[in-house]
This record gives sequence, C-alpha cells and structure tokens, in this order.
Amino acid sequence: MDYVYGPGRNHLFVPGPVNIPEPVIRAMNRNNEDYRSPAVPALTKTLLEDVKEIFKTTTGTPFLIPTTGTGAWESALTNTLSPGDRIVSFLIGQFSLLWIDQQQRLGFNVDVVESEWGQGANLDILASKLAADTAHTIKAVCVVHNETATGVTNNLAKVRSILDDYRHPALFLVDGVSSICALDFRMDEWGVDVALTGSQKALSLPTGIGIVCAGPKALEATKTAKSVRVFFDWNDYLKFYKLGTFWPYTPSIQLLYGLRAGLDLIFEEGLDNVIARHARLGKATRLAVEAWGLKNCTQKEEWFSDTVTAVLVPPYIDSSEIVRRGWKRYNLSLGLGLNKVAGKVFRIGHLGNLNELQLLGCLAGVEMILKDVGYPVQLGSGVAAACAYLQNNTPLIPSRI
Amino acid sequence: MDYVYGPGRNHLFVPGPVNIPEPVIRAMNRNNEDYRSPAVPALTKTLLEDVKEIFKTTTGTPFLIPTTGTGAWESALTNTLSPGDRIVSFLIGQFSLLWIDQQQRLGFNVDVVESEWGQGANLDILASKLAADTAHTIKAVCVVHNETATGVTNNLAKVRSILDDYRHPALFLVDGVSSICALDFRMDEWGVDVALTGSQKALSLPTGIGIVCAGPKALEATKTAKSVRVFFDWNDYLKFYKLGTFWPYTPSIQLLYGLRAGLDLIFEEGLDNVIARHARLGKATRLAVEAWGLKNCTQKEEWFSDTVTAVLVPPYIDSSEIVRRGWKRYNLSLGLGLNKVAGKVFRIGHLGNLNELQLLGCLAGVEMILKDVGYPVQLGSGVAAACAYLQNNTPLIPSRI
Amino acid sequence: MDYVYGPGRNHLFVPGPVNIPEPVIRAMNRNNEDYRSPAVPALTKTLLEDVKEIFKTTTGTPFLIPTTGTGAWESALTNTLSPGDRIVSFLIGQFSLLWIDQQQRLGFNVDVVESEWGQGANLDILASKLAADTAHTIKAVCVVHNETATGVTNNLAKVRSILDDYRHPALFLVDGVSSICALDFRMDEWGVDVALTGSQKALSLPTGIGIVCAGPKALEATKTAKSVRVFFDWNDYLKFYKLGTFWPYTPSIQLLYGLRAGLDLIFEEGLDNVIARHARLGKATRLAVEAWGLKNCTQKEEWFSDTVTAVLVPPYIDSSEIVRRGWKRYNLSLGLGLNKVAGKVFRIGHLGNLNELQLLGCLAGVEMILKDVGYPVQLGSGVAAACAYLQNNTPLIPSRI
Amino acid sequence: MDYVYGPGRNHLFVPGPVNIPEPVIRAMNRNNEDYRSPAVPALTKTLLEDVKEIFKTTTGTPFLIPTTGTGAWESALTNTLSPGDRIVSFLIGQFSLLWIDQQQRLGFNVDVVESEWGQGANLDILASKLAADTAHTIKAVCVVHNETATGVTNNLAKVRSILDDYRHPALFLVDGVSSICALDFRMDEWGVDVALTGSQKALSLPTGIGIVCAGPKALEATKTAKSVRVFFDWNDYLKFYKLGTFWPYTPSIQLLYGLRAGLDLIFEEGLDNVIARHARLGKATRLAVEAWGLKNCTQKEEWFSDTVTAVLVPPYIDSSEIVRRGWKRYNLSLGLGLNKVAGKVFRIGHLGNLNELQLLGCLAGVEMILKDVGYPVQLGSGVAAACAYLQNNTPLIPSRI
Repeated sequence: MDYVYGPGRNHLFVPGPVNIPEPVIRAMNRNNEDYRSPAVPALTKTLLEDVKEIFKTTTGTPFLIPTTGTGAWESALTNTLSPGDRIVSFLIGQFSLLWIDQQQRLGFNVDVVESEWGQGANLDILASKLAADTAHTIKAVCVVHNETATGVTNNLAKVRSILDDYRHPALFLVDGVSSICALDFRMDEWGVDVALTGSQKALSLPTGIGIVCAGPKALEATKTAKSVRVFFDWNDYLKFYKLGTFWPYTPSIQLLYGLRAGLDLIFEEGLDNVIARHARLGKATRLAVEAWGLKNCTQKEEWFSDTVTAVLVPPYIDSSEIVRRGWKRYNLSLGLGLNKVAGKVFRIGHLGNLNELQLLGCLAGVEMILKDVGYPVQLGSGVAAACAYLQNNTPLIPSRI
Repeated sequence: MDYVYGPGRNHLFVPGPVNIPEPVIRAMNRNNEDYRSPAVPALTKTLLEDVKEIFKTTTGTPFLIPTTGTGAWESALTNTLSPGDRIVSFLIGQFSLLWIDQQQRLGFNVDVVESEWGQGANLDILASKLAADTAHTIKAVCVVHNETATGVTNNLAKVRSILDDYRHPALFLVDGVSSICALDFRMDEWGVDVALTGSQKALSLPTGIGIVCAGPKALEATKTAKSVRVFFDWNDYLKFYKLGTFWPYTPSIQLLYGLRAGLDLIFEEGLDNVIARHARLGKATRLAVEAWGLKNCTQKEEWFSDTVTAVLVPPYIDSSEIVRRGWKRYNLSLGLGLNKVAGKVFRIGHLGNLNELQLLGCLAGVEMILKDVGYPVQLGSGVAAACAYLQNNTPLIPSRI
Repeated sequence: MDYVYGPGRNHLFVPGPVNIPEPVIRAMNRNNEDYRSPAVPALTKTLLEDVKEIFKTTTGTPFLIPTTGTGAWESALTNTLSPGDRIVSFLIGQFSLLWIDQQQRLGFNVDVVESEWGQGANLDILASKLAADTAHTIKAVCVVHNETATGVTNNLAKVRSILDDYRHPALFLVDGVSSICALDFRMDEWGVDVALTGSQKALSLPTGIGIVCAGPKALEATKTAKSVRVFFDWNDYLKFYKLGTFWPYTPSIQLLYGLRAGLDLIFEEGLDNVIARHARLGKATRLAVEAWGLKNCTQKEEWFSDTVTAVLVPPYIDSSEIVRRGWKRYNLSLGLGLNKVAGKVFRIGHLGNLNELQLLGCLAGVEMILKDVGYPVQLGSGVAAACAYLQNNTPLIPSRI
Repeated sequence: MDYVYGPGRNHLFVPGPVNIPEPVIRAMNRNNEDYRSPAVPALTKTLLEDVKEIFKTTTGTPFLIPTTGTGAWESALTNTLSPGDRIVSFLIGQFSLLWIDQQQRLGFNVDVVESEWGQGANLDILASKLAADTAHTIKAVCVVHNETATGVTNNLAKVRSILDDYRHPALFLVDGVSSICALDFRMDEWGVDVALTGSQKALSLPTGIGIVCAGPKALEATKTAKSVRVFFDWNDYLKFYKLGTFWPYTPSIQLLYGLRAGLDLIFEEGLDNVIARHARLGKATRLAVEAWGLKNCTQKEEWFSDTVTAVLVPPYIDSSEIVRRGWKRYNLSLGLGLNKVAGKVFRIGHLGNLNELQLLGCLAGVEMILKDVGYPVQLGSGVAAACAYLQNNTPLIPSRI
C-alpha cells in the first residue's frame, strides 16, 4: 500500500527526514529480539562508544533516547536546569522559536535574543549579557547550531570564546539536529555541555532516536537540576549503563541495528569526508540559486548552511506553490517556508546520505518548476553553475579508485 | 551483522517485544518520506480512526506518540493531573511498581495499595478508600490491566463498577501495555478515561509508538492539569489534528506504514478472534505448566493472564538458568523473573502475532530445559496437555477454509 | 556487506537490469513458501492472466520461466522449430548477434540479414526473401524489437505487413527484452507468434523470470517442432496449467510476489502512460545528446529507441573511460559500448521505473564526465534542452492531482 | 498482499523450498545493480571460490546458473554426454523418475535400474552391469543422492567403490538437490564428476540458482559431448571466467548477495556442524514417527534420510488430508506423497536453516492432525521421543557459550 504512488524514485529534499541508505534499510529489516539477551547490550555498547565520534567527544556520555528531536531538547533542559533558571536563547527562525517555546513552558526564565530571520544568533548581545552577568544568574546559553527554517549556521566556536572571555560558567547547550554528522561540530573542543540530534537527520535513519550527548559539567548539573523528569531522566540510563544492560525501557531493536549500519557507513566514508561532501553540496546549491538570480534567505556568507538552503522567491510567487508542484509533477519533495517566511521561501535540504547527481536532479527540477510558476529562469543555468563547481571538486569514491 | 547468530529462527517468547508478522516487516521496509506531503496526513487519518477499534472506543481521542510505554504512562499522568494530586495505584509486580515510581517522581501523592506478587489489585481496599473519600480527594485510580511480571490480569469492569458504586469522579487510568489488542478490553463500556499501550506488544510492531487513548473526561482534565509537559502534551497534537497535518514533530514514517499493515492484519483476523487466540494460547500454556507439576505465579484463576504466564520453579532451581539455557542451546527467548521474583519464576510470553505450533515448540523447549536443570519433568507431558486442548479448540484459518 | 559502497543512491542507467520500485522490493522481502499450497497457484493464476496485458494479447499463452532472456530466446526457438529449419534473422547489434549465435548453435539454418550497427533491420531484404520463398522454406522470421546495443527499434508492424503481403506462413518471433512494457508493442494486432522479455528489464524486477508469450500458431507449431527441449518445454507447463498447479518445477516465490506488485504498479500508472513516459524520457535524452553536439548511434529517427540511447563519442575519446568515470566519481552506472562499437559509444538506459528528475541527474552527470574526458561540452546545455522539453510535456502524477 | 494470511509464522516443512534465514532475506533486500561494474565480478569471484567448499572439492569448477534443479540436471547431462550415449540411472522415486524422463527426452539411451519406492539404488545391479560392460558402453552413472519423494539416501561412496572395482571410466553424475550442504557429501573423495543442487534447498535461499560443480573429467568430456546446448553451455561461462567478468548473461544481483550471506552463515556454523544438525533433526523425526507407531517409507536404516522423512499412513487414512489440515488449521506446510505414494505418505522436510524447537512445533502439529484424521496417536508421544534424544544431543550455540 502506497499513498499517492508515482513512477520512479521520490526525490527527497526536505531537510529531514532524509534518505536512508540501502544498507541501513537492510539492517533494520528484521524481527524483534529480546533486549535483555546478551546480544542487545553487546550491540548497544558499541553504539554508545562509536556515536561519540560524531560529536567529536571523548569525555561526553551519550544517551539514545526513544524519542524525536523535540524530546531530545526536553531531555537536555530538564536534566541540567531547574524551573526559574535564567537561560539565554536565540530566536532566529522556526526551530529556535519552538525550542524557546519549550523552554518557557518548562518554566525557565528565558532571555530571548531575537534576530531577523535570515540572520544568525546575535553574539554581540550575548557578550554584553555575559559581561553584565557578574552574578552568574545565567545558567545556560542555548544555541541552535543550524536553524533549519532559514538555513543559518551559527558560529559555536565564537560562542565558546565569548563564554571563555567572561569566564562565565553557564552551560552551553546545543541543538545540533540539522548539523551534527553533516557540519563541522566539535563538542570537546568547543566546550559544548549538551549536544543533541535526531536519527532522521544527517545520520540518515528513520525517526525514533533522540541522540543526546552530555559532557561532564552537564552530568554534574543533573545532581542539582530540579526540573521534573522521568522518561527523559538520564539517571535512569546511567543506572542501567552501570548494570551493563543499558536500557531502562524497551529500545527499538531495528533502530539499534540501523544505527550500527549507519555509523559503519559514516566511518567507512570518513566523518570529515561526510562533512566535506555536505560542504560541496551546499556550495553547489548556493551557486545554482545565484545563477537563477534568486536570493538566499541567509543574509551573510558566514551563516550559510551546508545542510539546507532557504531560497527567497519574488513577491509575485507563492513559494508553497513551488513545493506543491514539485510533489505533484516531479515526485520531488522540497521544504516549505515556515511561519514568518511561509510563502516567501522554499527550502532545499541537502543533508544526509546524498550525492552529487541526486542534487543535480533536484536542481533541474526546481528550474522547471520556477519556469512553471512564472519566474523567468534560464533553464539549465543553475545546473550549469553547480556542475562547474562539482566537476572540479568531487573526489573519486575511495572504494572504487 | 548479527550478534550471536544461531541456526533457524529465534523463538521469541518474552512478553515483549514480540514477533512482527512478515507483512508488517515488509510494510516498514522503506525509505523516509516528507511527513508534510499530503500522503502522510492521509495515512495518519486512517490510523487515528482505526486504532480506536483496538481500544473499543468511539468517544476516545488517540495519540500516536514517538515514545515507549514508559513515555505513554507519563503522557497519561501529566496531561490529566497536577502535582500533589492524590492517586490510588496498585503495586502487584515490577511494572506496576515502575509506574508508581514514575507517579511519585512526577510529584503526585500516590496512595499505594500493595498486594503479594502473584495476586491482583486489591479492589476491596479500593472500595473502602473510595467510600471514605467523600471529599473526592482522589483524583485518579491507576490500574495496570495486565501485570507483565507476574502474569496477573486485573478486573477492570469491577474497578469501574466500584467507581460507579460510590459515584466517584476519579479518573480511571489504565496501563494496557500487555493487554490491549490481546485481552478483552473495552474502553467505552468500562469508562476508562485514559488507556495506553506500546507498539511492540500485542500490536506486534517494533518499539516506537506509545499509543494513548484519552476519553472525553480526560481531555477535559487537560484544561486544569498543571503538570509540566511539553513533549508529551496532547494539546500540541490536538492543534495539529485541527490543522489536518497531524504531527507536531516528525513521526517515524516506517512505523506509520507498519501500524497500517498491523491493523489491517488484526482486522482481517477479527479483533475478537485475536483475543480468542490469546485465550487459547494462554489456556494451553497453563495446561502445560500444570502437567509439568509446576505452579503458576498467579495465585487465582480469576487473575490468569492470557498474554504471559509466570512459572514458579522449585527452590532448588534458579529460574535465570532456565532462561539462559533456552537462549544458549535452543535459540529460545523466555522472560526472566524480575525484582522480588527474580530467580523464582521464568515467564512465557504468548502475545502478539503467534500461533499454536510456535507455542508448542516453545513448550517442548521448556521441557527439555527443565530436565536439563534437574527438574524431574516427564518429557512430552506439557506438550501433550496443550495439544489435547488445542486439537479441540483451534479453528480453521478463515482465509483457507 | 556492500562491495564498493559510495554515498547516496546508485544512479542506474544501464539498459538492464533496471531500478526496482520500492513496492516491488517490499513485496519480495519474504520467506519461501510451499509452492504446492493453494496460495501459490491462486497467485500464479492472476499473474498469467494479467501478464498478457503487457503483451497486448488476449489469445497468447504466457510462460513464466525461471531463466534469463537468453533462456527465453531458447524456449521460443526450440518449442516452435526443428533442427535445420530455415529462419531469417537480422544482425544489427550485439544482442541480435547473440541470438543469431544461439540460433546457429541450436542447429537452425539461419539466413542472416546484416545491417550496419546503428541501422534497423533491413526489411527490404526481408521482403525480397519472402517474395522469393514461394516454397515456404522460411519457417520463422526472428526480430529483436529493440537492439539494446545500439538503441535501434525495429518496425514490427512493418514486418507483419510484409509477411501478410506475401501471405507467408513463417512464424514471427520477437525478442522484446528491452521493449515490452516500455515501447508500443501489440502482439495480437501485429500477429507476433512468440514474444518474450526478461523480468529485469522494463518490468523492473530482479533477473530471474523469462516471460514468454506464445500465440496459437506457435502453440500449434510445438506439435511438430523436433528441437530437443526439456527444461524449456512449454508442454510441461501446459500440463500443469491443466492441473491447476501451474508449476512443473519450483518457481521463485519472491519473484511471483514481485511480479504481482510490479504489474499492479504498471496497471495503476496505465500501460499507455508507462509507454508515454518512456517516449518522453527517450526524447529528452536525445535532445540532450543533440545539445552536447554528439551523435546518436542510431542513424535515423524512425529507429530511435525510447528505452536506450547509444551516444557516439569523438574518435579521440574512449567511451569506456566515460563509463568508468561515472561509476568511480558519481555513482553513475552507464552502459558500455559492446563489440563493434566498444570504445565508440556509451549507452544511457532509460527504461523501467524511472522518472524525469532521475534522468536529469544522469544527464548532468554525463555532462561533467564529458568535460572531464576532454570533450568541449557546455555544462548545463543538455539538461537545459531536456528540461525545455520535459517542462512542457510532463503530466501531473494522477494520484496527486 | 498475502494470499491466505494466517496469524503467526508459517511452519515450512516441505523438503524445499525451505526457510530462508533473516540475514539472507536482508542481504537480498536491494535494488538491481549493473552486473558489468567491478563490484559484481568481485563478489562473484568469492562465491565461485567459496561454493566449492559445500561440495568438498578443490578440483571442481562451479557454475551458478540462473535456473532450477531441473535446469541444473539438464546442464549436467548435455555438457558431458552425446545423444545415444548409454547411461545407467536408478528409478527409486518421483525425482529420480523425473530425471530419467529428462534423460530419455534428451536422447540418451537410459539403462533404468528400478527399485521399489522406499528402497535405495540397487548397487548390486550396478555392479553386474559394470562388470559386463567391458566395452565401456556405459558413459555415465546417474544417481540421485537423496530421493526427496521417499526420504532415501543412496550410498555414493559405494557407487564410487564399485566404479573403481571395475576400473570403469563412466562419468559419475550426482543429483545432490536435497543433500548437498545438509548431508555428508564429498565430491573429490568420492570421485563425483558432476554434482548439483538448487539454491532453495539446503542452502536456504529462494529458488533461482542451479549450482553445478564439474570435476576435471567432466570438463574434459564437454569437448566431445555432442548434446545441443546453449543456455546451459558451460563453455559460455568458462569464456567469461577467463575474461574476469564471469557472466554470459544477466545474473540475479539479489541472489548473488543472498548466496554470499548464506555461505557466510554456513561457514560461521561450520559445514560439519550443519551436517550434524541435519543428522540430529532427522534422527529426532524418525524417533517421533516410531513413537507414533507409524512406519517410515524408507525400508532400511542404511537409506534413512536426514533431510526428509516420508511417513507411511495406515490404509484408512488419506495422507493428502493430513497435509491439507496442517495448512488449513495450523499454518503448517508438509510435503504431499507423490505419484506412486500419493495418499500413502506425507513428508516432513527437515533441511535447511532449521532448529530443534521449530521441528518440535511441527511434530506436535502432526500429532494433533493425526488424531484429527482418526489415527489413535498418543498426544505428546512423538515430541517426547524426539525431546529425549535432542535434550542429550543438542550442542550449545557456539556464538553464545
């Protein structure tokens, strides 16, 4: 049974969930198993060890929580903070907005730093707030590494450096949902205290695991954090880690094997090569957008995202119509503009298990749709620009040299 | 990659996660999809409508939450109650204990009614508590329909009748994790306000969906319930239900299609036939236990569970050794005894997509293991007792008549 | 285990085996079954009935032989002809050459009509041979509908009309391996006596079923055909057709379910829409080739193939290098030039379950490779030409309107 | 879509096709690939090397032909013999009968040595024929190692020793369809010239590969063998072996990966352990039959088959009814009696990827059915007898010790 079948492959270019590689689909194609047999803990042990590599941490403790990114957010906050705690959070798009909404509903005192959508987190304001906070009332700084709604990547190294400048002890909590395993992310080097992602993003699995990594300072904070938590309580995990059975409640056997296969593919390609591939595809996409004569929603190059590009359309075009036509005519799934930028941008997700020709097929499709909706694009222009770059920058596939 | 491969099929007889039928495995064998395309809402709509049938409700509102049973518990409590609320809860085994632990950690004032493990909820005490509570300080009565640790099924109709006798307005919250879709369960008829299960139990899917169904009184209660909740907040779902997009955050595409296939199979077999099959397999298992000369952990017939049988072993045998040997020699997965009954019982789960010959293979295996660990069982005795019953009570498969 | 893994999807553009749609992969994801139970004959019956539609025949009798196209060829010949029989066969490329080689090795007296590779069957010579053959020594005319090596489609209606002109009783045997279910093919209307294809071609399944359809005259011919045959003997099938068990030996359960799913998809799309889609993709490919300034190996428009395009490269380029680079750098699988055209052409297969954006991704890849090997292509030119056509000619996906 | 769905697993106990292990199903769950890329030859190379181990040969040359066992038979005969050649063949059941029928239709002069069904090949007659044949008119001796219709295993070592006794140069051709990879088989030691099996038998794959292994004398014989052959011609394979591309026509990509996974599982378990497991399951089955008071169709212990047991039923019972009831009530697939023993025997296949508890489930089912059809079986008796043996003879699963 397939709803709305169309011939050929679906071209999946939303910024999540993303394409699952065939070896991962295969690995998950299995019956359930007893998660209390020796096999599942043995598998879990390798996962907990290996998943740290995608965070670039050796000191962090990972949790594979059966939840989504939203649940991962909640776990990061409730395990480390207490109701009423002051936190600084940056509102730069729909996903940072949703996280802030969650922070407020969880009872924190959220100091919201807003930017225009299309801009990154205003770190000057962060600096001034930290400078002023000699009493250390700010308990945490929360940053969305990559705002999926606008295609804006924030500079985490800079955040760390500002925190260090003011020797501020606030926790540094990072939403890496659309960045980790795709963009350069260095948990230990940047002193990130909690980082998190979801299995359906750059890891290229189905939805279902909220992957949270807590540094030593975050683990220490759990001892005093008074937020109510049960399902999301890291301590329940830690208790079972000690027992060597690992799971306080039933994990998805399929996702565990899928994660194993997914990590194996990432390590085979090499995490840095994975990141370089995303950089290449991001650059190619931006070159196409430029060739079409359209603007990137992201206002400055320093914030350009290598996992998603939000493309601004002229005022006489409804960007939702572009998304609708892609799906109806070309089996192409693009991302809608959300909230403030609804109707104004469409989004090309270029993260996860994706290669050059897949992207070029998408770009060709976008060109036809643009023409269709009345934008005077020169057919082939974006593809040509992307190809010119990719032809000179795509390495051979190592296993095939 | 398979950890600890053994030839032939794994015989999965833990009381969850359970065997997934091949058509469901097939339905889930797929790439991700854009959950904002028209296809996923169209699919979701059928699921939300059809899933109500397994609760036997027409007035309830279902939520398919990306979580486990533990998360479903949390959602049932936090959406309907406020910190400090008095609730009556029955401690009769490991899973009711864990739910009570959660209730306490969530800040409720839990009035625990304890029974010996192997007995059902003490409903006389419930009656006296309700009788005494003329001020209606009791805000909820929480019952685990089927205690998976001891194989005890509680009488929910009786609970309702007691509540009615005293015209008590307390919410009636039911953990149906190892019952719904396997045991007789009637949400509307029994006036259950919230019922919940997990996808990996009788529905025979992978872990990953906490299926919660809220009756009108429970939905009304959300308006005053002050428990902090975000990820588990039903209102976020209801908002998206109204929009027709259904999902406040990313669902697992694979599980949605799996649930569709799973429900289709259940409806093809007929829910009442599914329940009758569980009754048949439960009865056959108990007859085998009796033939072996062993005792059921469940102390009275009125509590016998048709989804799991906890078998008491003589004091000179460690029941864990039985489980270990099953796995090591026969590729058989049995349930361990938990907590108070650790070492004293082993459990045979007989729920989900299972048939007579699968169960008989398991029973034959248990006989060999019992002999192996020094229990003087007569080989073939349990199988013979089960066969004598099954031969006379197994209907033809309707599609094959 | 995957040999030579590369990130993202493989872009499969050889003219077979072709991309399998996900619903077909799912349908085949299953255990074996007893093929003598009532289920498999019931399934087979629907297949034998429905598969006739892709041949556009109501009078033909289909055989689903566990073999490849080569075996299907053999079955077509040995069931209808006797050693020494004179047959007319057209040598126009590698696959017609292989069929002729088989015909000769099977002991027929093959009257080979050769054309330059890139041209179609010389039907004038056929006409003169038939005209001269008043004694009816010619027992069969064998035509490859679509020569996969050169991308040449022969005019079968014309062949029939010539046979009719001379009232010649020769059997008309057609290799439809790379045509049936993709190109316009009309078994009954064109009086084709035996037609055949392979499951891994336009039907978009794995290799493993040789699908042969025999018209009444061909079935009649089996009675006198003296060629030795056992495995390929249609009579063994016919005997089991009568019994209603259908299979003289074990079929692949997986392929039967796969074929069911594959036919369902074709019928959902509509066979004529499938053929129109192939025409569209073929035309788009040829426009791209033209825009690149390259020549089609096929010398005249009347022979242009809508399932495969063989592209001639300039003498200073080795076409094998193009194929190699596609695979090594872009995870793109193109077809090599074979035999006489080895090194001179590369082939783009555009048949089976394929859509516009997949093809455009391939064309973009070819452009980059052409540039890479030193051909002065203007990047984007082929994609632009293809897009200009596709944008105006691609219908909405019916299920999504 | 599933024809005649029934809850729980299908219990597949026909002597082929057999249960496919999950890792093999997973390995085959994939899209097509270009079989001319470097990946497929690399994979094929390992298969051709490793498949020799299941034949216990180092000197043989294997062919993985896209066909069934029937096709494998044809390839063994036509590649080594000429029409009119005298061959000695043993008629002992339905499958040897079918092979003899094929031999006759292929034009050989078949010297049929018939035994009563239930007896093995009459090797005394073989000895006398060879003794008399000083002119060496006998070109081949054809033996079905294990007659699947009657559960009779022939003594191949004895055949070799008789051939040696008379220093007779006849080729020794063996149908190992229901033996190789399950019974003790030693191609080199026993001087077998051609041996063959099918993928859907003990190798536990889907149908689709006829696996044929030719010894040096057989390869030499191809040079003079005049039988017409094209599709089944080994020389076409040998030509491509030399080229390193391996395939004269398109293989099933899925089956190649499946075979890789299947061989890996066999090697992990150890071929001799696989054979021992079959011996154990065969013995257990025969003990059950005895306990039921029924007779084995196989008349002497020396011929007992460890892959299939044909059970004789009393004259007042129609064995087909047993098979029908198994399928209709218990989702159990047993083998019918064929031809001469139709209605008189039912067959329990116990080959391939199968373990003890699966078999015991089947045996319990057979007991219930026997009672159902009026045979006075003592329920549990067969299972008890099998358990008594298995409990003492089943080793621990090595990976789990």
